[in-house]
Amino acid sequence: MTPLGFHERLALGWAASGSMLCVGLDPDPARMPAPLQGAPDAALRFCRAIVDATADLVCAFKPQFAHFAAQRAEPQLEALCTYIRDRYPHVVLVLDAKRGDVGSTAEQYAVEAFGRYGADAVTVNPYLGTDAAEPFLRQGGVLALCRTSNPGSNDVQDLSVDGEPLYVRVARMVAERWAPHGDCGLVVGATYPEQLRIVREVAGELPILVPGVGTQGGDVAAAVQAGVTADGSGLLVSASRSILYAAADDTFATAARTAAIALRDAIIEAVKPRVLGP
Amino acid sequence: MTPLGFHERLALGWAASGSMLCVGLDPDPARMPAPLQGAPDAALRFCRAIVDATADLVCAFKPQFAHFAAQRAEPQLEALCTYIRDRYPHVVLVLDAKRGDVGSTAEQYAVEAFGRYGADAVTVNPYLGTDAAEPFLRQGGVLALCRTSNPGSNDVQDLSVDGEPLYVRVARMVAERWAPHGDCGLVVGATYPEQLRIVREVAGELPILVPGVGTQGGDVAAAVQAGVTADGSGLLVSASRSILYAAADDTFATAARTAAIALRDAIIEAVKPRVLGP
Repeated sequence: MTPLGFHERLALGWAASGSMLCVGLDPDPARMPAPLQGAPDAALRFCRAIVDATADLVCAFKPQFAHFAAQRAEPQLEALCTYIRDRYPHVVLVLDAKRGDVGSTAEQYAVEAFGRYGADAVTVNPYLGTDAAEPFLRQGGVLALCRTSNPGSNDVQDLSVDGEPLYVRVARMVAERWAPHGDCGLVVGATYPEQLRIVREVAGELPILVPGVGTQGGDVAAAVQAGVTADGSGLLVSASRSILYAAADDTFATAARTAAIALRDAIIEAVKPRVLGP
Repeated sequence: MTPLGFHERLALGWAASGSMLCVGLDPDPARMPAPLQGAPDAALRFCRAIVDATADLVCAFKPQFAHFAAQRAEPQLEALCTYIRDRYPHVVLVLDAKRGDVGSTAEQYAVEAFGRYGADAVTVNPYLGTDAAEPFLRQGGVLALCRTSNPGSNDVQDLSVDGEPLYVRVARMVAERWAPHGDCGLVVGATYPEQLRIVREVAGELPILVPGVGTQGGDVAAAVQAGVTADGSGLLVSASRSILYAAADDTFATAARTAAIALRDAIIEAVKPRVLGP
């Protein structure tokens, strides 16, 4: 049996959960709940508890590589990815590592993301162009940075190329030139709903990862209404800190679940008027 | 005593070695010399042997992150970085990891590069803008991707922004807006000497890392003459595979030294006409 591709896995994840929520797993040693502080495997134990508390509410989990790498915790990241794949096979696994390098090195990064960590998709920086994305697309799913959630994303991404912003050109490159090579999608911050609307027009039905709701301040309803496809799908709406650190004591997992339910429901509410019409 | 910054360290590296050669450390399990094949710490032993054989010939070593990450070999990368810093303190250590993420995550990547690995500088993707580079610039040196060595680098980097290519805009952003925040430089592939000449005009005296000589086919003399500063300096000319895999048997370290001497001398020869004049 051929393993399912990223797009098929995501369609199943949406269907199984009835949710477009993605929980980002960014373990920060300074914010570990009291019962885990100082434990050598705190990152893994913390993330497993969050995963167990929210797995029925999400279409995807998104471990963030830097938070493990800064702590010498790649073995914990591996164990976490195995845990998610084994326990919650309907949930899509996105490795948020923002890779991007020339061909022979991109091959090595693809081995890391899809072989070592078993991710369904990895976030990739588009600056190096199509040939640098191809090794990733051959081995798994790719979510290309398009318009990132940070305040300074306009520095480069809004530069005007023949009368349209660079991020729109990137969206078109991915939709037209990357898509024939494999299962891809885009990343657009929830902090930029108007830009998300434009990207959706260019990207057709491609999945769009939308980080930046919660702590970064993106408006959930505005982002969902801007990015959802005509059939009410197409998004991975991602929150990290607002769910992970909803409580700092031993109620952290319950508090994370409560925060995740609220966000999942807010996404569902936001989709309704778009799909049902006025 | 305040530790030296990236630019000061690089000036010392150039002066101590009389060389602008940088050796890239990209250990590929499929290409390990016969005596090391299958050894669990082959990557570390191989790279240490290359480092010992070439340290007096180089201004910098540049370990490539993906080649370690794909092999679960971050502990070997750590040990290699420690080895280089302890044994060859005059040699600059560039972590080639092409990082780039939004603020709070960029902080974690900076901890990884400068804390965990003790790098003097890290390669960074400019697509996310100035605020995403700032956490790196505060903690160490940054080499921003400008015009990469791959054939498809024109897809995005050559797009015309107000009549000039995007990579020129990126060079200007780094020179004008990143430089005030810390010690930075640029990355331009040796495969694009004409673009390197333009970047040098925009970038003033900023150091430029020039990968792509050797296996990727960049012409050393053309690249050096295009990129060198008026005083015959300013470059880290980087080769990896043509040095690392100069021989496949137990003469690999000697062969690497021979290849490195030839490249170092070719760089020195290329600088002469530019500095001495006609």
